[in-house]
Amino acid sequence: AKLWGGRFEESVTDAVERFTESISFDKALYKQDIMGSRAHASMLAHQGLISVSDRDSILQGLDKIERCIEDGEFVWRTDREDVHMNIEAALTDLIGEPAKKLHTARSRNDQVLTDFRLWCRDAIDNIVAHIEHLQVALVTLAMKNENLIVPGYTHLQRAQPILLQHLLLAYVEQLDRDAGRLLDCRHRLNFCPLGACALAGTGLPIDRFMTSHDLGFNAPMRNSIDAVSDRDFVLEFLSANSITAIHLSRLGEEWVLWASEEFGFLTPSDSVSTGSSIMPQKKNPDPMELVRGKSARVVGDLVTLLVLCKGLPHAYNRDLQEDKEPVFDSTKTIIGMLEVCAEFAQNITFNCEKIKKSLPAGHLDATTLADYLVKKGIPFRTSHDIVGKSVALCVSKNCQLQDLSLDELRSVNPVFDEDVYEFLGAENAVKKFCSYGSTGSECVAEQLDFWVTKLQINTAGHK
Amino acid sequence: AKLWGGRFEESVTDAVERFTESISFDKALYKQDIMGSRAHASMLAHQGLISVSDRDSILQGLDKIERCIEDGEFVWRTDREDVHMNIEAALTDLIGEPAKKLHTARSRNDQVLTDFRLWCRDAIDNIVAHIEHLQVALVTLAMKNENLIVPGYTHLQRAQPILLQHLLLAYVEQLDRDAGRLLDCRHRLNFCPLGACALAGTGLPIDRFMTSHDLGFNAPMRNSIDAVSDRDFVLEFLSANSITAIHLSRLGEEWVLWASEEFGFLTPSDSVSTGSSIMPQKKNPDPMELVRGKSARVVGDLVTLLVLCKGLPHAYNRDLQEDKEPVFDSTKTIIGMLEVCAEFAQNITFNCEKIKKSLPAGHLDATTLADYLVKKGIPFRTSHDIVGKSVALCVSKNCQLQDLSLDELRSVNPVFDEDVYEFLGAENAVKKFCSYGSTGSECVAEQLDFWVTKLQINTAGHK
Amino acid sequence: AKLWGGRFEESVTDAVERFTESISFDKALYKQDIMGSRAHASMLAHQGLISVSDRDSILQGLDKIERCIEDGEFVWRTDREDVHMNIEAALTDLIGEPAKKLHTARSRNDQVLTDFRLWCRDAIDNIVAHIEHLQVALVTLAMKNENLIVPGYTHLQRAQPILLQHLLLAYVEQLDRDAGRLLDCRHRLNFCPLGACALAGTGLPIDRFMTSHDLGFNAPMRNSIDAVSDRDFVLEFLSANSITAIHLSRLGEEWVLWASEEFGFLTPSDSVSTGSSIMPQKKNPDPMELVRGKSARVVGDLVTLLVLCKGLPHAYNRDLQEDKEPVFDSTKTIIGMLEVCAEFAQNITFNCEKIKKSLPAGHLDATTLADYLVKKGIPFRTSHDIVGKSVALCVSKNCQLQDLSLDELRSVNPVFDEDVYEFLGAENAVKKFCSYGSTGSECVAEQLDFWVTKLQINTAGHK
Amino acid sequence: AKLWGGRFEESVTDAVERFTESISFDKALYKQDIMGSRAHASMLAHQGLISVSDRDSILQGLDKIERCIEDGEFVWRTDREDVHMNIEAALTDLIGEPAKKLHTARSRNDQVLTDFRLWCRDAIDNIVAHIEHLQVALVTLAMKNENLIVPGYTHLQRAQPILLQHLLLAYVEQLDRDAGRLLDCRHRLNFCPLGACALAGTGLPIDRFMTSHDLGFNAPMRNSIDAVSDRDFVLEFLSANSITAIHLSRLGEEWVLWASEEFGFLTPSDSVSTGSSIMPQKKNPDPMELVRGKSARVVGDLVTLLVLCKGLPHAYNRDLQEDKEPVFDSTKTIIGMLEVCAEFAQNITFNCEKIKKSLPAGHLDATTLADYLVKKGIPFRTSHDIVGKSVALCVSKNCQLQDLSLDELRSVNPVFDEDVYEFLGAENAVKKFCSYGSTGSECVAEQLDFWVTKLQINTAGHK
Repeated sequence: AKLWGGRFEESVTDAVERFTESISFDKALYKQDIMGSRAHASMLAHQGLISVSDRDSILQGLDKIERCIEDGEFVWRTDREDVHMNIEAALTDLIGEPAKKLHTARSRNDQVLTDFRLWCRDAIDNIVAHIEHLQVALVTLAMKNENLIVPGYTHLQRAQPILLQHLLLAYVEQLDRDAGRLLDCRHRLNFCPLGACALAGTGLPIDRFMTSHDLGFNAPMRNSIDAVSDRDFVLEFLSANSITAIHLSRLGEEWVLWASEEFGFLTPSDSVSTGSSIMPQKKNPDPMELVRGKSARVVGDLVTLLVLCKGLPHAYNRDLQEDKEPVFDSTKTIIGMLEVCAEFAQNITFNCEKIKKSLPAGHLDATTLADYLVKKGIPFRTSHDIVGKSVALCVSKNCQLQDLSLDELRSVNPVFDEDVYEFLGAENAVKKFCSYGSTGSECVAEQLDFWVTKLQINTAGHK
Repeated sequence: AKLWGGRFEESVTDAVERFTESISFDKALYKQDIMGSRAHASMLAHQGLISVSDRDSILQGLDKIERCIEDGEFVWRTDREDVHMNIEAALTDLIGEPAKKLHTARSRNDQVLTDFRLWCRDAIDNIVAHIEHLQVALVTLAMKNENLIVPGYTHLQRAQPILLQHLLLAYVEQLDRDAGRLLDCRHRLNFCPLGACALAGTGLPIDRFMTSHDLGFNAPMRNSIDAVSDRDFVLEFLSANSITAIHLSRLGEEWVLWASEEFGFLTPSDSVSTGSSIMPQKKNPDPMELVRGKSARVVGDLVTLLVLCKGLPHAYNRDLQEDKEPVFDSTKTIIGMLEVCAEFAQNITFNCEKIKKSLPAGHLDATTLADYLVKKGIPFRTSHDIVGKSVALCVSKNCQLQDLSLDELRSVNPVFDEDVYEFLGAENAVKKFCSYGSTGSECVAEQLDFWVTKLQINTAGHK
Repeated sequence: AKLWGGRFEESVTDAVERFTESISFDKALYKQDIMGSRAHASMLAHQGLISVSDRDSILQGLDKIERCIEDGEFVWRTDREDVHMNIEAALTDLIGEPAKKLHTARSRNDQVLTDFRLWCRDAIDNIVAHIEHLQVALVTLAMKNENLIVPGYTHLQRAQPILLQHLLLAYVEQLDRDAGRLLDCRHRLNFCPLGACALAGTGLPIDRFMTSHDLGFNAPMRNSIDAVSDRDFVLEFLSANSITAIHLSRLGEEWVLWASEEFGFLTPSDSVSTGSSIMPQKKNPDPMELVRGKSARVVGDLVTLLVLCKGLPHAYNRDLQEDKEPVFDSTKTIIGMLEVCAEFAQNITFNCEKIKKSLPAGHLDATTLADYLVKKGIPFRTSHDIVGKSVALCVSKNCQLQDLSLDELRSVNPVFDEDVYEFLGAENAVKKFCSYGSTGSECVAEQLDFWVTKLQINTAGHK
Repeated sequence: AKLWGGRFEESVTDAVERFTESISFDKALYKQDIMGSRAHASMLAHQGLISVSDRDSILQGLDKIERCIEDGEFVWRTDREDVHMNIEAALTDLIGEPAKKLHTARSRNDQVLTDFRLWCRDAIDNIVAHIEHLQVALVTLAMKNENLIVPGYTHLQRAQPILLQHLLLAYVEQLDRDAGRLLDCRHRLNFCPLGACALAGTGLPIDRFMTSHDLGFNAPMRNSIDAVSDRDFVLEFLSANSITAIHLSRLGEEWVLWASEEFGFLTPSDSVSTGSSIMPQKKNPDPMELVRGKSARVVGDLVTLLVLCKGLPHAYNRDLQEDKEPVFDSTKTIIGMLEVCAEFAQNITFNCEKIKKSLPAGHLDATTLADYLVKKGIPFRTSHDIVGKSVALCVSKNCQLQDLSLDELRSVNPVFDEDVYEFLGAENAVKKFCSYGSTGSECVAEQLDFWVTKLQINTAGHK
């Protein structure tokens, strides 16, 4: 019989029980649920709402149940609906009468939110650690590939030469904001709903500051209705995950491209590739394809929660039971994505020779040439035009800018001088960059140092 | 060792194996996979690509494996990646050499799509049956509540009196289009990709029409690249599910409202209600709240698939492995929603007395009064204005339109006559409706007959 | 003053007026609104609800207003809220009293849905025409590039050689299903809501079959509540657009890749490219990037509508006013995407020489070699393994399969014979394909003929 | 001719021009674009890259253009593509040669992001001000309705009595987190991309710290590739808006419910209601319905941007042009929603008499009764059961808990005493709440004070 069965004469149908149960997934909250019950029982005893010996029975019972769950011996029962009722009923089976006092001044409404906020807090800490791990992998990869110039793209067309390090650090920057977003979310959600009870608080003399403090929250939430009604903390959490997922989908796309025959810039090791059941020659960068693909489910999880919460009146509605699976799935997925990206970063080789050979294509030095003209005093728009004509000349001759003779250049515009050749070619072009944050070698080295220090990377193995 | 391991020197890392595996979910396709393999083996033998005895070994082996799976004795191995490789490897363990010939002229790319289209076809048939079941439940509920007048709402404000039957049939209409959408999708997806192989077809003399026919497809797909690349059939399927889910979310909202103390129009039986762990008096319509809530995950599943497919080049990309879980989840969810709605429909009682008492509120007969004036020859806009003033008079006197004396009505406009009272009051108002599809008793009866016939409902128990 | 102002003593605030107005966008429905009013007025006269002379005044007035709108001289007034009230009020200004009779037995609820269904019907016809136009462009492009072999990809890794025509026809197939989906939607939405009035129908003797027929609908909708409440037709329409958009995003991605320096397979003409404000050498395939990007807004429009409709009780709710802009945006966007893809298809050149030179890379003939071994009687799994080892030999020698001597091949497995060389090399490989729907030349030619006939393409200029 | 037209021989087709143009919407950035150009020109002069007199011409020219735009006299030209090119070309028309130097060490890639970050920063400030305005309106409404007890709901079933003030403050709490989220986003996006140029920075001696400082940014962005590639700041911004929109959709739903005949808890003034074109008696809370509905487009805008960014390789891709309209739409919509909610809050009356009369229904005091029993030493689970049976007794007698005689109560359980009646009835029940954050009068008064102080509300008019 259900714990709320008092006035009910009939039990729910099988289909309804199956449809409304949550134990198949919310048992993932068992650790947080027990943690919350411990704090609650201690507070009840401290306030004289239960006796010390009842508290001790409860605490010992909870210890046993926790061990039992962790040993895989706990039997989760669907007819006990959810993680809270399963644990409370098991406690009653175990210790009898005192267990019936645990739910004093508590409702499942505030209980589940306490559990869930604790769970999200842990999940965020876990994700942030994985973000940092990937940052370290990227910076380490950058350290291994000093001075490697690669084409920089816009519109997937070759644009300007850049240092590979510069590109890798761009990802590191993005991940840094991802972590920041999660930490802001963590701070905002770390307030304690326990004691909000069903929605209105209680008339019993509880101490919400005590439970809040014991559970590591910043403070109790100020408004009990708000505490049980709102799910903005999960929306914010899954938004943050979605943005991270989008970042990783872009990294996935880039590395899939770079691993293609046509780009040929990188080769993953066998340990992060897979083959084909029909085409024996294939070596596919599947993990990065799946990183790109799995970003979709992180976004889908967010959308589920936004749709879920839309238009619900206050306070608790049963719809909100659906808030958990998307959060669990999003968390598991994003951690897998971060892990696999780090592993991929540790297991790829850049094909320096092939990259170097490809650099002359695409007139990557054109903009540097325009800068040259600006330095000669030509207004930028005119410079742009002159370089455009020079490139057109190259196209017609099927050559690179550095292959044009000074006469040819001067046929476009007489301003060109012998020193122009110091600006042409990808290596020269990279050397000329000097603005803060640019791809110039010194600028990049400075940024690399910044990250090595910030991420406390041991550079002993390098240089 | 992986079946594609020929040229690979290192096996994938644990994290990659965990991240890329699909066996944990694609084993749901085992039935379709075995069905496809049977058809494929028979065709290979018919075309002389394998011997008849090889075929027989394969068919017997597949039978054993199927039984083994259904008896829960099959061991699914993550190192064998997916359902296809698990079954093929088990077949090799079982029958040896002939099993190695089964993958002739087949790739996992066309194999998985054959399985998946078969699975979706079954899922659609299943959902359509559940839609029909809910339609029957709603029509039956309508038959049980003849002549019950309820307020019709716009803007959640009382608008006009309607027959409850009329409202219930509105849901039936919507469900009918839902089924139609699914059946259109079924027709469009029921083409056979088998024989498309990796992406380009094969040079072996297979007969794609034979396998297509054996598996109940309309025809083989015309273009092998299209066959392995596209997932529009799942996008269409999940779109159809999403629209159904939105319909059900509206039904859920409506019945949650009607079950509230404030509306009080319906009472669910205990068998479809739940209670509260803290508030003993509560009796909550949880199943319908969850119907409303679970619509969110059906929408989220669709969004996942849309994001997944966006911007993928041809042909197969590993991202597409992520196409299955959202489809499985969407299917399971929508079936649960339909089931629970039907069960709810079978277990609610409309509170006729309370509804009847509430009818006078809200001036539900105002539009009927405007029709009265139109019949008297007053232009509609003028009629609307006159009725507006009459209502204002009611509001000031805190009464209903039918409570106004003829003098009072004539003080607004002299056109009113004694016959006006035949148009006032909810019962009178409902009687006046006569347009096709309207809430007039005869119109609704006609529609009810239409559905009773179409759904082949046995009306013996009624009337 | 608002037309519904009868009992209202205060007019709405500016912010509310601004927030709730729809005239800024729903004026797009003017043509359909006038068309609906014409049919309605004719029916009213036919049924004797208005006089013939009133009808004639109304029809003449509507003609004038339509011309006035089309000449850009109509003044849309926000204080008149929406397109319906603007036109009706203008009609009253123009013809006086008879205009006040037009709204007889009609509400804005059924009126707007009549307009909107008519609009969507036209939009679908327009989109389907653009789909066909793109199909013609793709088939024409295929005809221009007979015999061009390109790499076929899976995982963006080179997989097997395919005919470019085969790939182009894969897009044509997808577009064909896109059109089919829209036409199914068109059929399902083409039922007439007019006469449903506010939600319950009317007591006036209207003829809904007459208006339905005059407006080209299949039939009047059977249930008036359903008629004004549901928006599944727009959800289905935008779902269909979203699937088309996803298809086009994949084409966009593919052509952006192919236009890159690294692939270099195609060059767009200047007329469909853009340049850079800073890098004078750039020539970017912007239209196809935007096709890929704009798929996002089509998906976003669908999500907006799904979220909008979720959890709304019956019948009409003002939320539903928000149904129009996403539909207008989705329609405009998808038409632009289709147009630009067709234009791109007409303005690209495939770089046959470059493609041909690149073909040897990637062991595209490996699977054909496995087929060769199967034909020699080797079980497929064993063949796959032998080819895997042969490819490994190539990799170690940095050569192609066709470069291996017979002795080298036999060192892998003695089964190889002199005839193996007929199976090696991309050209040979393509020739070997023979299964229905495969990339074999004859198979593709057959499919091309199918589409030329189906799309009624004039082939005079070709061959 | 386009400014990048140097090497282009053909201009783009009309369809492409129409499809790729952005001036129709990005002109909204004109203010920020001019602001950025001013800072850039000043920096160029300070660094000696342009002369002081060129700078002065540029600044004067920009002033003129700004005035011209604000006076509505500027002609935006589609052939000039976007806001940047329009303004630069107009500057060239106006001041000639110096204008050609403005684009020195700048690309549209960094320029547009500078504009866009400035725009978002302003938008956030604007939204946060509107959030605060709504908070003030809600607190003011709370002050006007001291001591008003309303039913608190869970599952839309009456649960416990709460103070209306308590509920209103729950919204205020949620809005407070909404503002916090936006301010975190503001801080994270307030870094300056200017000087990142196309993607790699520049070789010209610019001072990025100077422009960053002049434009009020925290600092220049550290990585030029990151600066032009990423759009996480808009994803975060639109996520924050979406969460706010979901909050407001819930408020919308609640007030629509409360304005219904069935709840009848509040009446909006005519100034925030609308009527019906066919039902003269209707008075609809349309603004709140539209608040609920428009939340959908805010969510849709977010989804558009997530889909847009998914899977894009670095650095800039033209797809990203599509980032602006969703941000503009989201901002406009959320501001409208906040404004209208505030206006609604200022224009509703709570129907105290009707609410008071309805309070006895629903056994709102049941949980308080359970607390009573706990205080008597009964374990909570047993108390819950006793109250359940007492409620069942009430249901069978069709009365309220306070109507049960002591004997009747004792027939359920002998523990009841005369003092039980101090706990029964909604007024008594509310008085008993005492936990922090609960609905108890003192607790709520304390919270109200907190917000009055925090929001600096003048309370002179109250009390």
